[in-house]
Amino acid sequence: MDARVKSDSFDVVASSFDLGHWAARRQQEVERALEHWVNADPREGLDHGAPAELVRAMRYSVLDGGKRLRPLLVLAAGESVHGHSAAALRAACAVELIHAYSLVHDDMPCMDNDVLRRGKPTVHVQFGEATALLAGDALQALAFELLTPDDGTVPEATQAALCRLLARAAGSAGMAGGQAIDLASVGCTLNEKQLRDMHELKTGALLQGSVLMGAACGRTSPRQLDALIAFGAAIGLAFQVVDDILDVTTDSVTLGKTAGKDAMAAKPTYVSVLGLERSAQYAQELLATALTALERGEFHQTDALRALAHMVVNRSH
Amino acid sequence: MDARVKSDSFDVVASSFDLGHWAARRQQEVERALEHWVNADPREGLDHGAPAELVRAMRYSVLDGGKRLRPLLVLAAGESVHGHSAAALRAACAVELIHAYSLVHDDMPCMDNDVLRRGKPTVHVQFGEATALLAGDALQALAFELLTPDDGTVPEATQAALCRLLARAAGSAGMAGGQAIDLASVGCTLNEKQLRDMHELKTGALLQGSVLMGAACGRTSPRQLDALIAFGAAIGLAFQVVDDILDVTTDSVTLGKTAGKDAMAAKPTYVSVLGLERSAQYAQELLATALTALERGEFHQTDALRALAHMVVNRSH
Repeated sequence: MDARVKSDSFDVVASSFDLGHWAARRQQEVERALEHWVNADPREGLDHGAPAELVRAMRYSVLDGGKRLRPLLVLAAGESVHGHSAAALRAACAVELIHAYSLVHDDMPCMDNDVLRRGKPTVHVQFGEATALLAGDALQALAFELLTPDDGTVPEATQAALCRLLARAAGSAGMAGGQAIDLASVGCTLNEKQLRDMHELKTGALLQGSVLMGAACGRTSPRQLDALIAFGAAIGLAFQVVDDILDVTTDSVTLGKTAGKDAMAAKPTYVSVLGLERSAQYAQELLATALTALERGEFHQTDALRALAHMVVNRSH
Repeated sequence: MDARVKSDSFDVVASSFDLGHWAARRQQEVERALEHWVNADPREGLDHGAPAELVRAMRYSVLDGGKRLRPLLVLAAGESVHGHSAAALRAACAVELIHAYSLVHDDMPCMDNDVLRRGKPTVHVQFGEATALLAGDALQALAFELLTPDDGTVPEATQAALCRLLARAAGSAGMAGGQAIDLASVGCTLNEKQLRDMHELKTGALLQGSVLMGAACGRTSPRQLDALIAFGAAIGLAFQVVDDILDVTTDSVTLGKTAGKDAMAAKPTYVSVLGLERSAQYAQELLATALTALERGEFHQTDALRALAHMVVNRSH
């Protein structure tokens, strides 16, 4: 089992489905694909193709052994609707590129000013701020390039649908909008609804987008689409609730990032708004909501989606 | 005639085609469309939809009365192949959003550190660095959202083709890559080939991309596509050569930006590499190359493209 998917707590609740086995193969496929695609013929000096230093910064930020949760959600949702596998792999990588660019920009001095991510210097520390800025910009463009191959491997209607979903999830009414609200909320007192609104954009939109992009690789009935929309919304929010819990209950080493950072930054969190116990309960309620939604969809196959939902809520880091 | 297209020098060389008249109507259409689309239901506070402050920064950077050269190129190329007009308008606006985001990020302290653009404070001065960063990010996402409407107005194959062209033009082997090379070349001595390579990415890719996106809104023969590729490459490069000339021959007021900036920043330019006279001659050669390429395409209608090529080379600011 790949160490990046530590689903110990999940194994207790799941049926015979082996998430570790399922995920390890798909993570390998995603790693291989990212390794191949974030490699736009870099040459030294000034020649055609992407400049070498920029591509190095892009690769540094992407090929860093993240959990690849978003790609796994894309692939699991794709499998639940017998989706086009080449399209799903591209969608999985595209979502990860958007996630990676958001971390690069988020770490910059004008945003969170983080110097370490997953134990490595952040991109602007390693490559300078200007290159970090451009690497993030180029990763976003590359995400859309991955979704639109001209080699006939992905139907054009699927390409268009994937670009539409990704653009919405990443933009001002999605991830970027959520980050803007997050910035504005430092030092503010938020009620639960305001906190939920923020996180539905900041983290939720791209997680839900991952599920919907997977679904867009196949055919879905209106009932299935509704089910996946509800599933994606619930696990998107659950992810953030659990993140907030882990931020106060887990040490930095286990977490792989600085614990207690939200409180230090005076950022409102689920724990600060609901308290620890109610937050943990809320996460379980969201898991139940997600699983119930899936049942309504009458899918052929939802083992992986269900297992990922369990993992999101019961993870230890 | 719209003051933003001052084609005085053009009027001398053109035939009966009235670029001012042609451009004014299309600029109005583009302004109206941008005004409508960069307006993602902004609400105050934390509610669904894009946060108000972020949208204000996006609008501030886009709705600022630029020349809209790229949109005009999209529309002119679209008309040359009887392209789908709804698709062309969306493509025109999408290219402008990419151009606008690149200026926002380019002006930031870690890049060019500019405080004024077209006589107004730059976005990070007006809204803060973090909001400028996010506004640029959100504008790039919005560009792809504009290209992928789900209302049936643009064929899905066209949507996919437009996303593909825009992603390539904007990414690491296009605009973002060119900016990275530009950063790395400060204080360096470049030969003419290296300078051309840099500008083909930095400015040329998006200008050529504009022409190709316009063409993608209609049907093009291989011969026509070749012609437009050559045309786009020539005017893309000509634009930069003329920019370099104007930087040393024109005062800041006429130019609308700080003149002599490249020399101060020790950036290699066509004037520094070729000298002023040879640069001016080169711009005219590129214009001739562009016009000859168009003739090879056997288009029904190239008046607007030809007039825009003249304007790019013979503009006074």
